[in-house]
Amino acid sequence: MASTMYPDYPPDLDAEQQKYLLQNVEDWSIAHGLAVRPAATWVSEQQDPAGALATTAPVTMFPSLFPKGCFDQAKSVAKSYNELYSAIASNESWLKEIVEELVEIDEFMAELWKVHLAVKKEGYVQPLNLGLFRSDYMVHVDASDSKPKATVKQVEFNTIASSFGGLSSQVSAMHRHLLSIDAYPESTSSLIKSTTLPQSTSVPELARGMAVAHNAYGKSSTGLPTCVIFLVQDPERNVFDQRHLEYALNSTHAVKTFRLTFARVLADTEVNASRKLIYSPPHAPTKKFEVSLVYFRAGYAPSEYHGKQDWDARLHIERSAAIKCPSILTHLAGTKKVQQVLATPHSPHLKHFVPDETRAAEVLKTFAPIYPLDASEAGQEARKLATKPETAARYVLKPQREGGGNNVYRNAIPDFLKTLPESHWPAYILMEMIEPPAQSNVIFRNGEMQQGGVICELGIYGACLWRSGEKDGEREVLENFEAGYLLRTKGSGSEEGGVAAGFGSVDSACLVDL
Amino acid sequence: MASTMYPDYPPDLDAEQQKYLLQNVEDWSIAHGLAVRPAATWVSEQQDPAGALATTAPVTMFPSLFPKGCFDQAKSVAKSYNELYSAIASNESWLKEIVEELVEIDEFMAELWKVHLAVKKEGYVQPLNLGLFRSDYMVHVDASDSKPKATVKQVEFNTIASSFGGLSSQVSAMHRHLLSIDAYPESTSSLIKSTTLPQSTSVPELARGMAVAHNAYGKSSTGLPTCVIFLVQDPERNVFDQRHLEYALNSTHAVKTFRLTFARVLADTEVNASRKLIYSPPHAPTKKFEVSLVYFRAGYAPSEYHGKQDWDARLHIERSAAIKCPSILTHLAGTKKVQQVLATPHSPHLKHFVPDETRAAEVLKTFAPIYPLDASEAGQEARKLATKPETAARYVLKPQREGGGNNVYRNAIPDFLKTLPESHWPAYILMEMIEPPAQSNVIFRNGEMQQGGVICELGIYGACLWRSGEKDGEREVLENFEAGYLLRTKGSGSEEGGVAAGFGSVDSACLVDL
Repeated sequence: MASTMYPDYPPDLDAEQQKYLLQNVEDWSIAHGLAVRPAATWVSEQQDPAGALATTAPVTMFPSLFPKGCFDQAKSVAKSYNELYSAIASNESWLKEIVEELVEIDEFMAELWKVHLAVKKEGYVQPLNLGLFRSDYMVHVDASDSKPKATVKQVEFNTIASSFGGLSSQVSAMHRHLLSIDAYPESTSSLIKSTTLPQSTSVPELARGMAVAHNAYGKSSTGLPTCVIFLVQDPERNVFDQRHLEYALNSTHAVKTFRLTFARVLADTEVNASRKLIYSPPHAPTKKFEVSLVYFRAGYAPSEYHGKQDWDARLHIERSAAIKCPSILTHLAGTKKVQQVLATPHSPHLKHFVPDETRAAEVLKTFAPIYPLDASEAGQEARKLATKPETAARYVLKPQREGGGNNVYRNAIPDFLKTLPESHWPAYILMEMIEPPAQSNVIFRNGEMQQGGVICELGIYGACLWRSGEKDGEREVLENFEAGYLLRTKGSGSEEGGVAAGFGSVDSACLVDL
Repeated sequence: MASTMYPDYPPDLDAEQQKYLLQNVEDWSIAHGLAVRPAATWVSEQQDPAGALATTAPVTMFPSLFPKGCFDQAKSVAKSYNELYSAIASNESWLKEIVEELVEIDEFMAELWKVHLAVKKEGYVQPLNLGLFRSDYMVHVDASDSKPKATVKQVEFNTIASSFGGLSSQVSAMHRHLLSIDAYPESTSSLIKSTTLPQSTSVPELARGMAVAHNAYGKSSTGLPTCVIFLVQDPERNVFDQRHLEYALNSTHAVKTFRLTFARVLADTEVNASRKLIYSPPHAPTKKFEVSLVYFRAGYAPSEYHGKQDWDARLHIERSAAIKCPSILTHLAGTKKVQQVLATPHSPHLKHFVPDETRAAEVLKTFAPIYPLDASEAGQEARKLATKPETAARYVLKPQREGGGNNVYRNAIPDFLKTLPESHWPAYILMEMIEPPAQSNVIFRNGEMQQGGVICELGIYGACLWRSGEKDGEREVLENFEAGYLLRTKGSGSEEGGVAAGFGSVDSACLVDL
């Protein structure tokens, strides 16, 4: 991590200041659904069999400092990223090459591709695609520059189940509330101001994305009412994050929604003769609905597929006429291999998918160099970097698969690679470590406050609806908009990222001019 | 309890219906702050030292049936009740007679009166008074009528710390949401409709009442910013009920609010030379505020006064220039003795305070006969009724004091009176039991569902701002409006009322034409 560019922050609080801040965080969060179900290690099922207890979602007590230029930079490329990934997801032959390199070593991708091929053989019946994306960045300062400047570098691009959009709006509203009630000491007044705390619009904008898709689906042809399905895991501690999107869809857009667990797909839905997806709610089986949109908050991790019936369920949804958020091809477009191919120096692919040179150049600026670990020239170079401790120290080794976890950092890389047969190395990519300026915050999690060094990841949501063309590689973008932001902050002691995994917190940005 | 006039309700649910309803109640409630802190018997302080866990407030799964005529009747007299109680609170000499009858036997009232006298001697400096009242009713059916008709009868009138206004708006929104997502089975569709579920407006209207008082207080004369103080108990499990009012004041009316525990009044506030109440927040002691309004959610129960310092604190507030909600006289006006005096047959008092004959007649219709247990003619009659088991069976014996609890019902009255010296009997009133039609519901409380017979109490909130005149008995009403409703429902197995005491739940009305 680079030395800091930030002012001294957050301030130390005396006991009364801390008590006031904490009480207001605890109460505001529950009053506004900035909440999660408590971990089983804290509240056992025996103690709360109905699952009726909740607690404040892991949050930062202060909005984290974030360079304004970086924030603007990340937002400015949101629509270009939507364009890029909708183009990739619409180019089956291009994706095929990517996937074919991985199918041997990544069973999950191989199975996903099989689902696509099965539906392709039968013929797709739904040309509309919805992407609710999140592009994640970190602030990077290249210390070797004579005049070090902060820019954002992309960590990853999520094409499925991009989470925390529901809570992000809430945490940014909470930090603004805390400012308004003077919960932050006077000494922060030059930093924390209503003009430096951007309100995340992720709840209304992600809901609008779904509403746009729902409306584009059009009238039911079965005469049944239409609905949106939230495909979810069970149990789900992060349920309120999802519920906020549901409630916004219900109340702002008058769209009916149902939560369906992945395990219940085959039991509660059928695909009729014209491939419409028909949902029968278990609580009212005679009341059927035609599904306009399936929004995936499950089915993204290999661990969710326990056997044939789960793959049958995925196929069942994919072959239906419901709009998928995402489709299999869009899901596959999110593989890190795609990110790596785009970010490999002198790659021709970005220009191909984003023909506008200015926009492509702006996207390119957000890439951190990424190398394959395959037999290509770049791959050979990467293998050298990764196997020597002194060069490996600037890199992170990441699996191609989604879902966080299992990253190998810096000096640990050479030894890790020794444990793997070389034939498995292409399942990983090597990425230059992003070096964020050091900063601190206080994280409130599981009823406990922890203060210390933190690392912030800025996620920019994007919503994109497109219609696949007749020919491979063609598509028409119908809607394309930026959809709010997320700041996700973890203790710098832990190098893993997801808040739901129990290491991080939801945060909002306090913009600073650096 | 009379036999029922209601249709068969609520419906029996199968396992899937129950699961769907419960999941939606659990999630919607937390997402919208329809919550309480869990009881210490469920979650110990050791398990959650920061008090970060919360749970769904005790709620009914279904909106309870309530006769539309009764609902309209109760709402129609809200402004008349505001008029009545503001008039009583402005008539010191009349109140003095009431109080003098009780001071001998009710130390709490005696102490309250002493506070008033002390301030009177010094001279009151704030002529403005805010009442946020709640008039509580039950549906009564007189089975002896040839054509039994449902009307509302008043249970009590609250002039201090009328609670559940914050949660009432939320529960009524929740029941409407549950309807909109088809969580209620088809068989209820003739009863539960958007047109039969009135949305309670208690949050915005009670907040408006406070904002009106805050604005009427006018500009600060000290040059300090102004604020509203929520005077609260500590700990407070029902904190979200209060917070919703605070947040509405903050966001809708841009009024600054602070929570102050009763125990901290003398430490954190001072009354300056011109009797302005100055608040120094412990978290920012150099930032002082002039208090426009003290909203009491504490200080209403004798058990909160542990000694001289607590009475000093009450005096401290009362003599200040802050508007009190309520003032001591308004607090005293809420004694059951006042209700009894008004409801004693052929009482001249109601007409005196509400000169409009039509309005007075409408208020009168909501009184259940109430008898004193003193030496008056009515009192003698009451003593006969109360000491004979066969007549006592239609009555309830209530202490004059506020706060719920300690009521003695029906056949238990004669034996209870035997345990008291007759000189203490005037501390109680005898009230004819209100006989509501039998009804059922499902209450969700502490993570458990309980189905069975219930009793519903309808509370109508009223907001009234008035200026006391120069002469005793004179006042000018500046604002007077109805401020939403509360339906509070308890299992009919228990005869106690307050939800916070752990016996009841928050509910909303499903109006039926009977």
